[in-house]
Amino acid sequence: MRNYERYLAHLRKIKDLENAMAVLSWDKEVNLPPKGARFRSQQMATLMGLAHELFTAPDFVDNVGELHQDGAALTPDEKRNIALSWMDLDRIRKLDTPFVIRYSELVSDAYQHWLEAREANDFNIFQEPLDRLVGATREKAEMLGYDEHPYDILMEEFETGLRCRELDVLFKEVSNELADFVRAIREKPVIDDHCLKQYFPKQEQWDFGLDLLKSIGYDFAAGRQDISPHPFTINFSPEDVRITTRIDEYSIAQMVWSCIHEAGHALYEQGLPPDAYGAPIGRFISLGIHESQSRLWENNVGRALPFWKAYYKSLQAKFPKQLGGTSLEQFYRAINRIEPSPVRTESDELHYHFHILIRYEIEKSLIDGSLAVKDLREAWHEAYRTYLGLTPADDREGVLQDIHWAHGSFGYFPTYSLGSFYAAQFYAQAVKDIPGLEDRISEGNTAPLLHWLREKIHSQGRRYDAAELCRQITGEPLTMKYFLDYAKHKFGEIYNL
Amino acid sequence: MRNYERYLAHLRKIKDLENAMAVLSWDKEVNLPPKGARFRSQQMATLMGLAHELFTAPDFVDNVGELHQDGAALTPDEKRNIALSWMDLDRIRKLDTPFVIRYSELVSDAYQHWLEAREANDFNIFQEPLDRLVGATREKAEMLGYDEHPYDILMEEFETGLRCRELDVLFKEVSNELADFVRAIREKPVIDDHCLKQYFPKQEQWDFGLDLLKSIGYDFAAGRQDISPHPFTINFSPEDVRITTRIDEYSIAQMVWSCIHEAGHALYEQGLPPDAYGAPIGRFISLGIHESQSRLWENNVGRALPFWKAYYKSLQAKFPKQLGGTSLEQFYRAINRIEPSPVRTESDELHYHFHILIRYEIEKSLIDGSLAVKDLREAWHEAYRTYLGLTPADDREGVLQDIHWAHGSFGYFPTYSLGSFYAAQFYAQAVKDIPGLEDRISEGNTAPLLHWLREKIHSQGRRYDAAELCRQITGEPLTMKYFLDYAKHKFGEIYNL
Repeated sequence: MRNYERYLAHLRKIKDLENAMAVLSWDKEVNLPPKGARFRSQQMATLMGLAHELFTAPDFVDNVGELHQDGAALTPDEKRNIALSWMDLDRIRKLDTPFVIRYSELVSDAYQHWLEAREANDFNIFQEPLDRLVGATREKAEMLGYDEHPYDILMEEFETGLRCRELDVLFKEVSNELADFVRAIREKPVIDDHCLKQYFPKQEQWDFGLDLLKSIGYDFAAGRQDISPHPFTINFSPEDVRITTRIDEYSIAQMVWSCIHEAGHALYEQGLPPDAYGAPIGRFISLGIHESQSRLWENNVGRALPFWKAYYKSLQAKFPKQLGGTSLEQFYRAINRIEPSPVRTESDELHYHFHILIRYEIEKSLIDGSLAVKDLREAWHEAYRTYLGLTPADDREGVLQDIHWAHGSFGYFPTYSLGSFYAAQFYAQAVKDIPGLEDRISEGNTAPLLHWLREKIHSQGRRYDAAELCRQITGEPLTMKYFLDYAKHKFGEIYNL
Repeated sequence: MRNYERYLAHLRKIKDLENAMAVLSWDKEVNLPPKGARFRSQQMATLMGLAHELFTAPDFVDNVGELHQDGAALTPDEKRNIALSWMDLDRIRKLDTPFVIRYSELVSDAYQHWLEAREANDFNIFQEPLDRLVGATREKAEMLGYDEHPYDILMEEFETGLRCRELDVLFKEVSNELADFVRAIREKPVIDDHCLKQYFPKQEQWDFGLDLLKSIGYDFAAGRQDISPHPFTINFSPEDVRITTRIDEYSIAQMVWSCIHEAGHALYEQGLPPDAYGAPIGRFISLGIHESQSRLWENNVGRALPFWKAYYKSLQAKFPKQLGGTSLEQFYRAINRIEPSPVRTESDELHYHFHILIRYEIEKSLIDGSLAVKDLREAWHEAYRTYLGLTPADDREGVLQDIHWAHGSFGYFPTYSLGSFYAAQFYAQAVKDIPGLEDRISEGNTAPLLHWLREKIHSQGRRYDAAELCRQITGEPLTMKYFLDYAKHKFGEIYNL
């Protein structure tokens, strides 16, 4: 076998292990009987350990090193694969094993205390374990190395190439522009959204969700939907991409937009090139780009008028008693109501980015040492007063609301906002590229959009980094212009501004 | 770490991999979207390869060898584990890698042709691939080595210690005694079982099945039931043992007795000692003993009168229209109707053993070379005429009906009959050991029986071989007496003989 083929075969084996882990994890969320948890955790840990052993096996590392040194015989895609693997290995090599073990123990400890703290509604229980974890994360950033800000190298894990320097500029622009805009909205009458909060029986919700998924192109021959406490997308190959949803019988919104959101993620995964299974370029680009796909479908498509021109009739037909008296216009306004909330996951499309900005600024300060964990709750409340004009009632709806820090995921939050920003820029381009796109959507035909996304984004795998992909598709780097135009146009119309 | 602890930790890792494979396999039967099959097969093959690599890793083999040589410091259980691992390694060592690869290719080829042959209803399509596989299986027996008959060493994989010499005696006795008995039954009027073949809606069947499972002690906190084309039991640990069933809306029998049968398997797995996870003694003893558990519940309990004295009322309550006019006596006779069929899986409790005897004799002759594959169809028809007095209408209900040979599983069939024979002997002992057992069962209380099985069999794991376990529990080696007594008593009463 050529060295490159050996490299690829080895990576596919690792991918098989990772996907087996994913099956165990899916099964854990969807099917696991309560007593099954103990051995399941052990089994997942064993698979993870084996995958790590395979990835760091000396023969493999040597092979990648040689291919990295002398790539003369490689095609551009092959070179890209080797470069990405080399980058991953480099990252792993910089963290020695005792540190990795210590870090994972600190994560377990922090997670346990976060659960307890939430239960008791008391940040103090979480404070010390989090302090130790933040300390170790700062060490980690030093071990990995960075040019400008230690937070940069933490984001690198989720969004290759992104720097605080750029993000500061983007967030500043968004925050300045949105602050005034949202203030103007809040002076307008509050939109009535009671139509969304009636009794919607489970089976009818489930059926409507399935119809919606089929209609927007989610391939049920290469996936399935199940119920789980928190909706998620998971894939075992591009030919088995599963989603879950949650149904609240007293709110239709939860199910509808979790379906569309997860379908956005799943359409991306189902569109990745199956021939590149296991290779680095067979993967999604970054969390920001992944989130751009879910948010493009959820918001730019799924909370826009053309989409509901097509689907509102069938929603009414499923729930005639509940929605028969609600017009499309009323429904459209209800699903786009702007109202600040202390909880990120319950936020509207605009306030959402203040939630992320707050987390981003706090994380950055924790990592560069300008904020101490003991002052975290106060900083949180201060930021919420400043940006959202409200104070969380308690720790559970305040500083303890997210799991991310308890998992050691520092640098993850910004990818959520990036997702919306990329989504707006991509969608604006799609409208330019596809004649009559929104007319087609209002006829219930989203196929041209999916086709465009498949060609421009999904089928490319990880051939390019996010910034490069964005330039290729839109001819520009990521800019706030499209997101702000979208937001101001849509909500300006809804709120008569 | 002590050498023994290293040995055990390594085995647990292997077991984790095997159980991950089992999760992937369960998911494949229960959940897999059609396109998911391709990468799933590859993922399962990778896990299997890794488990094999771990089991044959030189360090591990050396460690087992040393512990096997010098077991002075080991407890009896520890010695037993080492002896069993040594036996497994010995078996693997005797088959060189090129042979194992060739054999697995022959199996794939045979399986594909078996599928085709079934589709076309033509044994000729299967003949040559099967011939090659039988040839390789004969080579395999030579490589593994044996004392008396090459078939002995094939059975060894499924039923340690069993020899043709003993089995010939058992089967001869059963066949002689049952032949006359069944002949007498067939002179009696045929029992009417139309009551079982009405329309029984799916949901009510499912609900009744769940009630039954709960009632006989299947622990839903350590398992779950799903639907699959062929019912099966699978376990990922003693704390996650899953079963599946199949529902035919025009027959109640399929669901009821597949539930009870699989529950019998599952109760065994749920009763295995969790502390011995991964160790050889943490496992079931043999396929014969496993099958004894499923058949004891299915037949000795689940097709007997006391059980239905307890449950028939609730079955009638679930299906008042269908069964309201059928008495317990009529129902009991219907579920025990004796009627020969050319198909093993549709057979009654008595004819079943002729099906197995036929396969046993044919397999033995194929393996010792006294029967050629080209004469297989004819031998099959001849045997069915002799033992069941019927000729299969075609290959699909004849020689192509079972998957076992297409999988290379020669030596497997006898364990089905052994299961019934052990079940009868164990059940007879339980009746002696537990005061008023059948009265309790007829009150819907099977807990004393489960308790007895847990203590005598399940919790022992693989501490003893089947023969030894049988002597310990019943004071005798396996004998046909109990099975024949059971059969003649029960069916003698039903058929007035």
